[in-house]
Amino acid sequence: MTGSVAILGAGTAGAGWAARFALMGWSVRVFDPDPGAAARVASVLDNARRALPGLSDRRLPPEGDVVHAATISQAVSGADWIQESVPERLDLKRTLYQKVQEHAADDAIIASSTAGFTPTALYGQGARRCQIVVAHPFNPVYLLPLVELVMAEDAPGWALDRAEQVLRGIGMMPLPVRREIDGHIADRLMEAVWREALWLVHDGVATTAEIDEAVRMGVGLNWAQMGPFESALLSGGAAGVDQVVSRIVPGLDLPRTHLTEMPEATEALARIVADQAGAQAGGRPLEELERIRDRNLVAVLRALKWAGWGAGAHLRDVDALLENGAAEIAGPIRSVARTVPLDWVDHNGHMTEARYMQVFSDATDRVVELMGCDAAYIAGGASFFTVESHIRHLAEAKPGAALHVESLCLAAEGRKLHLFHRLFAEGREVATAEALLVHVSLETRQAAEPGAELARRMAEIARAHAALPRPAGVGRSVGQKPL
Amino acid sequence: MTGSVAILGAGTAGAGWAARFALMGWSVRVFDPDPGAAARVASVLDNARRALPGLSDRRLPPEGDVVHAATISQAVSGADWIQESVPERLDLKRTLYQKVQEHAADDAIIASSTAGFTPTALYGQGARRCQIVVAHPFNPVYLLPLVELVMAEDAPGWALDRAEQVLRGIGMMPLPVRREIDGHIADRLMEAVWREALWLVHDGVATTAEIDEAVRMGVGLNWAQMGPFESALLSGGAAGVDQVVSRIVPGLDLPRTHLTEMPEATEALARIVADQAGAQAGGRPLEELERIRDRNLVAVLRALKWAGWGAGAHLRDVDALLENGAAEIAGPIRSVARTVPLDWVDHNGHMTEARYMQVFSDATDRVVELMGCDAAYIAGGASFFTVESHIRHLAEAKPGAALHVESLCLAAEGRKLHLFHRLFAEGREVATAEALLVHVSLETRQAAEPGAELARRMAEIARAHAALPRPAGVGRSVGQKPL
Repeated sequence: MTGSVAILGAGTAGAGWAARFALMGWSVRVFDPDPGAAARVASVLDNARRALPGLSDRRLPPEGDVVHAATISQAVSGADWIQESVPERLDLKRTLYQKVQEHAADDAIIASSTAGFTPTALYGQGARRCQIVVAHPFNPVYLLPLVELVMAEDAPGWALDRAEQVLRGIGMMPLPVRREIDGHIADRLMEAVWREALWLVHDGVATTAEIDEAVRMGVGLNWAQMGPFESALLSGGAAGVDQVVSRIVPGLDLPRTHLTEMPEATEALARIVADQAGAQAGGRPLEELERIRDRNLVAVLRALKWAGWGAGAHLRDVDALLENGAAEIAGPIRSVARTVPLDWVDHNGHMTEARYMQVFSDATDRVVELMGCDAAYIAGGASFFTVESHIRHLAEAKPGAALHVESLCLAAEGRKLHLFHRLFAEGREVATAEALLVHVSLETRQAAEPGAELARRMAEIARAHAALPRPAGVGRSVGQKPL
Repeated sequence: MTGSVAILGAGTAGAGWAARFALMGWSVRVFDPDPGAAARVASVLDNARRALPGLSDRRLPPEGDVVHAATISQAVSGADWIQESVPERLDLKRTLYQKVQEHAADDAIIASSTAGFTPTALYGQGARRCQIVVAHPFNPVYLLPLVELVMAEDAPGWALDRAEQVLRGIGMMPLPVRREIDGHIADRLMEAVWREALWLVHDGVATTAEIDEAVRMGVGLNWAQMGPFESALLSGGAAGVDQVVSRIVPGLDLPRTHLTEMPEATEALARIVADQAGAQAGGRPLEELERIRDRNLVAVLRALKWAGWGAGAHLRDVDALLENGAAEIAGPIRSVARTVPLDWVDHNGHMTEARYMQVFSDATDRVVELMGCDAAYIAGGASFFTVESHIRHLAEAKPGAALHVESLCLAAEGRKLHLFHRLFAEGREVATAEALLVHVSLETRQAAEPGAELARRMAEIARAHAALPRPAGVGRSVGQKPL
């Protein structure tokens, strides 16, 4: 389902909404009198185009138009959804809604991005209160799924249904908030962190960078996938849901901080938390949740390692401390030695095809690095591209298996490099890959002669390997009868 | 560097320490009089073996022994590092340290896992205070890098150096805390969230599950990679570091919550935060940080999508709402239609080899799904394994490019299925893959006849495709001259 949306106010949040709606196929009209608004929307839309479509394994609908409206009435006339993201001033918002309601359809939803005000506060004395809801997003709006959806108690059912449908249709995860409170849910939690974090900075206990590290190297990784309660459930060993509150509470009312007022830790509160946390676990034993948590963490940590950021940058540093094997090039080169990670496994319970290719690609990277095509060489504007490869699967590799690759240089002639990799899991040959690479200029993206030192090393290794026996599988085509 | 470590107290934290030290090659002696301790350590070690080694792209050192010591003296004699993780009672810890110091080497480091006490509180009247430090880890200890390292002001330099070296050597990220305070840094922030979260549950505003969703679908994803301050810096558009405090502070002292005592938002505090946040950004323009954030988020979200958990489970639901193309099988089958995500790109600036294989593997999955080998069929205990494949790279695919695959069934005979995929980026053919698959029993892991309905559909599609022209590249071996 797509439609027409009016974006009122194009700051970071408004521009993010515009980008998400447009990329999910809605036609977008933006109203913001700020002369910088158009450039801001264009820039956020660029960022969103770069990041959002690839999140999906399917094609997104054709992108909707984004036009800038000269007036509020132009923006909201005929719109199905009106998203207000103007500054957090109640008088400003109320005046705007009056204007909007003069021109908008009676059944259009007017959603406010407010982080703090309740729908009842937003209504004021306005007409048609039931069309005004809170839909509070999180930055960047085009990537984070959460939107807090708040309605007054007397809001009609159709408004909630429509709002949920629209928000899910643009890829968001609406969280209906069961009671109107200032700050909804997420901002209350975030503000709690802010207060404590500012005290730490104020008191000279930690810098902003240290506080960020204390979050993203630890609890942030848990909270990206399980949230505070489920994480706490798993930090207490076998004690289980009944113990969640008793594990959390000690310390909370100690005078460690300026902020210690606590709800009384009655048995009734402990019971509520235990029941809710138990329902949340959905009958899964703690041992299973632990394994799920670990699989999630491995996947998230390895994603950050690919990005080279935060905990992932740290993991790269850790690797640098580990032995990378001897660079013995006379025999077959031991180009990879590693373990099959948890996130390399598919629905068949073994290492997935794409990860075989990743291991072979890592093996190729290591061989050409030993030849002199290292990070510095590549930064100089040349590299190898794979032209062709042939994979044979001989047996399965299971998660946790120790892998190694033995690589052979079959030939190195001019721009061409011909390699053969044998992959072993726990010492057993599980796959081979034959690869033809060509040396390219990264500027022209065309084949180019390798640098002199690289050419010399390529020839040297090819000569050394020419004397070695050719393994089974070299030169095969798919489906050819076995030797 | 490895060595010998004593683990005193084997609850969740202690067992996690034991597992991390052992997997990083240390020999481990555990002391915990609880009769359940040995089973707990074995279980945590199993979890750690499953998850930790794969985080690295290199081989970990040989695993160290884990033995259970009958007495404290047996555990600590000759140990280089003594990790205390007994319950959070000061008297208990102090008594333990006295006993430890009778038997431990004078230069062994005694590290406490305490979440709350300062080193000075831990020393009490004990001797050799300088060997007692706080090394506070986060659960699961074998995966999360953060360890808060706290020392008293008069601790000698060698102790800090040694502690950092040991902790980095087992893959952790020690964060030296510049001042002793109860609760260090991370627990203060976590406890702030706990207090507010318990009020929300207590007041009936949200359930534990809703609070977890409010975190892991939004801010938790930011905090897994950037932390609160850097995330806030990017939520204000172009305003920059000078505006961080003025963007955070409004709302923090509103009576939204029971907890509102705030440090006064003086210009001096604003200056400190601005300077620190600026230093943290390290000269990177905000636009660059935004792109880094988005790349991180795409990688993390796609990792969670692989895991099918949290925001990743949500993304799978979003995909299910999108068109998956018509299942027209008479011509070449349009088996994939998607966009190249940000996390599929390598150092050469184009889609990496492994991701070509992933697209082709997805294409194969879609073709066999259309033949009847869908999730339900696979759950019944049979599937296809790839035996052999041949990839030709014809041109590059850039991030953001629209991809589609046209798949041809070259043959389907008994257990064998022979496919040919052509991959197009923005309409241009960039690669082909020829694949030979065999139908297997997931129980025996051996070739097996497909089910009758699957065999019928395989034959039907093979017949329909037999009439279609064979594309260039079928039957090639690596390095064969072009046609």
